[in-house]
Amino acid sequence: MESMDSAFMILSVLLVWVMTPGIAIYYGGFIPAKDRTKMLLEIFLMFGVVGLLWFTIGYPLSFLGNNFGIIGDIKHIFLGGYSLTALYPNTKISNSIFILFQMMFAILTPGLFLGSIASKKSTKYIVAFVAIWSLLVYYPMVHMVWSSTGFLAKLGVLDFAGGTVIHIDAGVTALILSTFAVSKHKETDDGTHGNAFWVLLGTVLLWIGWYGFNAGSALALSAQGIQAFFTTTMAPVAAMITYALLEDHFKKQISMNGICTGVICGLVGITPATGFVTLPASLIIGLISAAGSYLFINVLKQKWHVHDYLDIFGSHGVSGIIGSLATGLFATKSINPAVVNNGLLEGGGFKQFGLQAFAVVFAFAFIFVMNFIIVKVLKKVFKESSSRSHIHHDVLGHVHA
Amino acid sequence: MESMDSAFMILSVLLVWVMTPGIAIYYGGFIPAKDRTKMLLEIFLMFGVVGLLWFTIGYPLSFLGNNFGIIGDIKHIFLGGYSLTALYPNTKISNSIFILFQMMFAILTPGLFLGSIASKKSTKYIVAFVAIWSLLVYYPMVHMVWSSTGFLAKLGVLDFAGGTVIHIDAGVTALILSTFAVSKHKETDDGTHGNAFWVLLGTVLLWIGWYGFNAGSALALSAQGIQAFFTTTMAPVAAMITYALLEDHFKKQISMNGICTGVICGLVGITPATGFVTLPASLIIGLISAAGSYLFINVLKQKWHVHDYLDIFGSHGVSGIIGSLATGLFATKSINPAVVNNGLLEGGGFKQFGLQAFAVVFAFAFIFVMNFIIVKVLKKVFKESSSRSHIHHDVLGHVHA
Amino acid sequence: MESMDSAFMILSVLLVWVMTPGIAIYYGGFIPAKDRTKMLLEIFLMFGVVGLLWFTIGYPLSFLGNNFGIIGDIKHIFLGGYSLTALYPNTKISNSIFILFQMMFAILTPGLFLGSIASKKSTKYIVAFVAIWSLLVYYPMVHMVWSSTGFLAKLGVLDFAGGTVIHIDAGVTALILSTFAVSKHKETDDGTHGNAFWVLLGTVLLWIGWYGFNAGSALALSAQGIQAFFTTTMAPVAAMITYALLEDHFKKQISMNGICTGVICGLVGITPATGFVTLPASLIIGLISAAGSYLFINVLKQKWHVHDYLDIFGSHGVSGIIGSLATGLFATKSINPAVVNNGLLEGGGFKQFGLQAFAVVFAFAFIFVMNFIIVKVLKKVFKESSSRSHIHHDVLGHVHA
Repeated sequence: MESMDSAFMILSVLLVWVMTPGIAIYYGGFIPAKDRTKMLLEIFLMFGVVGLLWFTIGYPLSFLGNNFGIIGDIKHIFLGGYSLTALYPNTKISNSIFILFQMMFAILTPGLFLGSIASKKSTKYIVAFVAIWSLLVYYPMVHMVWSSTGFLAKLGVLDFAGGTVIHIDAGVTALILSTFAVSKHKETDDGTHGNAFWVLLGTVLLWIGWYGFNAGSALALSAQGIQAFFTTTMAPVAAMITYALLEDHFKKQISMNGICTGVICGLVGITPATGFVTLPASLIIGLISAAGSYLFINVLKQKWHVHDYLDIFGSHGVSGIIGSLATGLFATKSINPAVVNNGLLEGGGFKQFGLQAFAVVFAFAFIFVMNFIIVKVLKKVFKESSSRSHIHHDVLGHVHA
Repeated sequence: MESMDSAFMILSVLLVWVMTPGIAIYYGGFIPAKDRTKMLLEIFLMFGVVGLLWFTIGYPLSFLGNNFGIIGDIKHIFLGGYSLTALYPNTKISNSIFILFQMMFAILTPGLFLGSIASKKSTKYIVAFVAIWSLLVYYPMVHMVWSSTGFLAKLGVLDFAGGTVIHIDAGVTALILSTFAVSKHKETDDGTHGNAFWVLLGTVLLWIGWYGFNAGSALALSAQGIQAFFTTTMAPVAAMITYALLEDHFKKQISMNGICTGVICGLVGITPATGFVTLPASLIIGLISAAGSYLFINVLKQKWHVHDYLDIFGSHGVSGIIGSLATGLFATKSINPAVVNNGLLEGGGFKQFGLQAFAVVFAFAFIFVMNFIIVKVLKKVFKESSSRSHIHHDVLGHVHA
Repeated sequence: MESMDSAFMILSVLLVWVMTPGIAIYYGGFIPAKDRTKMLLEIFLMFGVVGLLWFTIGYPLSFLGNNFGIIGDIKHIFLGGYSLTALYPNTKISNSIFILFQMMFAILTPGLFLGSIASKKSTKYIVAFVAIWSLLVYYPMVHMVWSSTGFLAKLGVLDFAGGTVIHIDAGVTALILSTFAVSKHKETDDGTHGNAFWVLLGTVLLWIGWYGFNAGSALALSAQGIQAFFTTTMAPVAAMITYALLEDHFKKQISMNGICTGVICGLVGITPATGFVTLPASLIIGLISAAGSYLFINVLKQKWHVHDYLDIFGSHGVSGIIGSLATGLFATKSINPAVVNNGLLEGGGFKQFGLQAFAVVFAFAFIFVMNFIIVKVLKKVFKESSSRSHIHHDVLGHVHA
């Protein structure tokens, strides 16, 4: 008989599973109706592309073996010679479950940034980009932060459920794609083409899924897992209210897009901190994540002329940075004994905050540079214009790839 | 390591979570398309408004301390000084999980009645009403029925998962709002504006969520929890068939709105009895709940000139009353040793039935009077007409609050 | 306190529950908009019709008692005199949970084939057909394959989660209904009436539900249950990619309908093998299921003039046959000690493959003949034309039954 932690983790795998269709529907709700099917199709296709890649080389490169603290190796290609039923180190769950849990993260993360190009590039470009990005960006990030032999993990960087690995990663990747991979034509979405039902349904699937994402990252039904569950409730609660108040104050209206963006920002912000902080801290993190993202999306983006289609950097990038830094402010041993240095506002001095700031800067730079190179190389390979004008697709979602 | 009951309750929290978007989509399926976004937005907003309120004072007022058996106190405001990791009394789950489970109920219940005003009142009115209603109606009802120090609990009233606290509460509140808070203009919904997909999707989310609602109310993966799970299947099965047969007989048609209304009535009816009764009893409760609600919605409402937009009183109120009384007929120690007096038809005499009848009358009167006062006071404060004519919102769901 | 397996199975019941609305929405996404509500309504109605029937005589006829290895008896009609709380033999879950788990299968299976007639026959016809089909086809199939006293089970036929019982069953039934129950008018669906969102949402609900369907069929949170969970991920991954590559190669496009059909084929194919095979085997099963179904749907169907509305036989029938046979190729004791003879490609010789081939032929013939008789008899009883021309329903889904 498997341990009870296995039951909890099976549930968590299922929850993270639903986030991928969730993000497809969420982004679909912001774009013109004619582009929606292509968005759904290409994000759902990640189950196939990334799922297969994870099984063959992704998991070994992320978690097995070690090269310079940056990447694993492919000794266990196709999981050959790797026991599925043995327990994952320091847990009571089998390797099978850990592989599946992490597979769902690997499938989801491209979904988070694909919103920036799904309706603008061909399916072949998207598949090629995601495959290369997985190898050169995602697996190294996972290894550096979450493998016990990763160099950021060894330094003591804290990232409970993926502030750097998932959200800064997706946000910065989307920024590069929006800026360098697609033509800077005037966006045609004038705010009238959205679909509030899709935005809500997407947000619902994402929030529900995020419970598995955050609480499941404890890898056990522990006090820390339950605390993660609770903070994954309170941070988006605070962020939703914050975003609604800001919209009401500055725009004299409350919109579905607004409160749902707020919720996503709160969820992103709490992600790296979720099993490390108290409930009041989670409310503050939700508040500052939503406020920071609101400021970027409504003011800084225009001021700095940032291209950020669907505000993916504005929500995942900005709130991911805020949350990763805030982990250095609020992490506390009283919640999680794995915290070595308390955060700055928990009396631990600057050490953890400094580590978190370093990790943010390093992750930002690494992801930025790698993606920039990938985009430039693919531009030569595909020789396709950055515009979407020659992609044909019809209402049924037949995409001429 | 947490107990297995924790895993079951985490699942239950998630299930009840989905009921709030579920009820928003369900009601959205009955109303004209132009009003749907406002419905979705305002019900989803309850996560923020009620979630925050529950964390600050709602939980303490409901479950901590005691004043006259009617209400708790706010000694543990913001949950300060209250252990999250300690076990909730008489269970193997931590306080965290119990707070979260009950938070989902507190968020859902306003969703149940907001259908009656979401498309007709301003967002500010709705937020104000729900905040005051939570304080003056919901927290007292929870304390009286579910806190061990509540006066109805002490009398021996049985309400397994919320017949009085949730459904009579929501039904009667909706009745007051329909009658006194909105203008009695002719409803413009002539039956042609619905959306069967939304009605189905909402019903699916509600029924699935109800499993957590009812079975989770056992607070343990016990025989009673599993019995609740089973009766939460059989009662709506019987109610669906009952409603379909009545529609087929009297209207010569079976409609999506009909079978889904039937399902909801069956779920409402079984709620107070779910962990106390046998399977045959659950079928009977499903049957009489659906039949009673059908009678009210199709005959009595017109005859008595009751204003009941979206038939919220007709389903939640009427079936909630039927179920609460039926608990006094069918509750049996053979299913649940917590039953002190068997129901009338289980050989226990009139005692439990009398208690249930008293609780129904008391709850009805208390909720009626409190809501009447709140509506009248808010009418003065808001000085807005009861019509929705001056609320502007567009297709994207920007609601000018 | 219940066992941990109970928690796992409760989750599994919920997951299979969502497959019924899932299949309704999935099929709804392929058909003209005007027919969708009728599809949703009639499949959802199965909860009532089949749920009630299962409780009264379905479960006893399937699992209790034995007549000739073909069918049980109705000694425990209405589950009278049958303990709900006793453990189901050889498991740690109560009879209640087993009854509920199997009830969800009994409700789902008609949903799988109803796509072929839901928009073409009256509601009364559909209810009558399903009731008779449950008695004469489904309960016997369940008893023969899954009851310990069933004759196919005794022979040693392997069917982990329902390749013969559910998918060949649904596929062949749909074939008969498409061929003999409805008029062979030219299908009016010219490929322009689909709804990619519904197809995706349906597929999501089905895949998620299939985790409970397959892993839950272990009846325990065991290594085999977790292996089933993993193979239920990898087979559809391989099938999605296979279908996309075939579409891209032969049709120069990738469609939502295509990748989702691929996923369903992969899920169907792995179903009988899910807890018996290795991960590489699951990839191969996904690949050959998708390829076989693609071949049938795009070539053989036309060549052989097969009537197969919505390609239900093409996906469930064909992939169900492939998966059932493949179980005889890949089943291995190394994954599941319940395997007595290893499959042909696992060094076990032809014995298990022969058994599987016999079961496929037997199931095909039994289901074919029984359905043919039912359809012919009902044609006399209903005396309604095979066309749907006299069925009236409007946009709200009021179906004049």
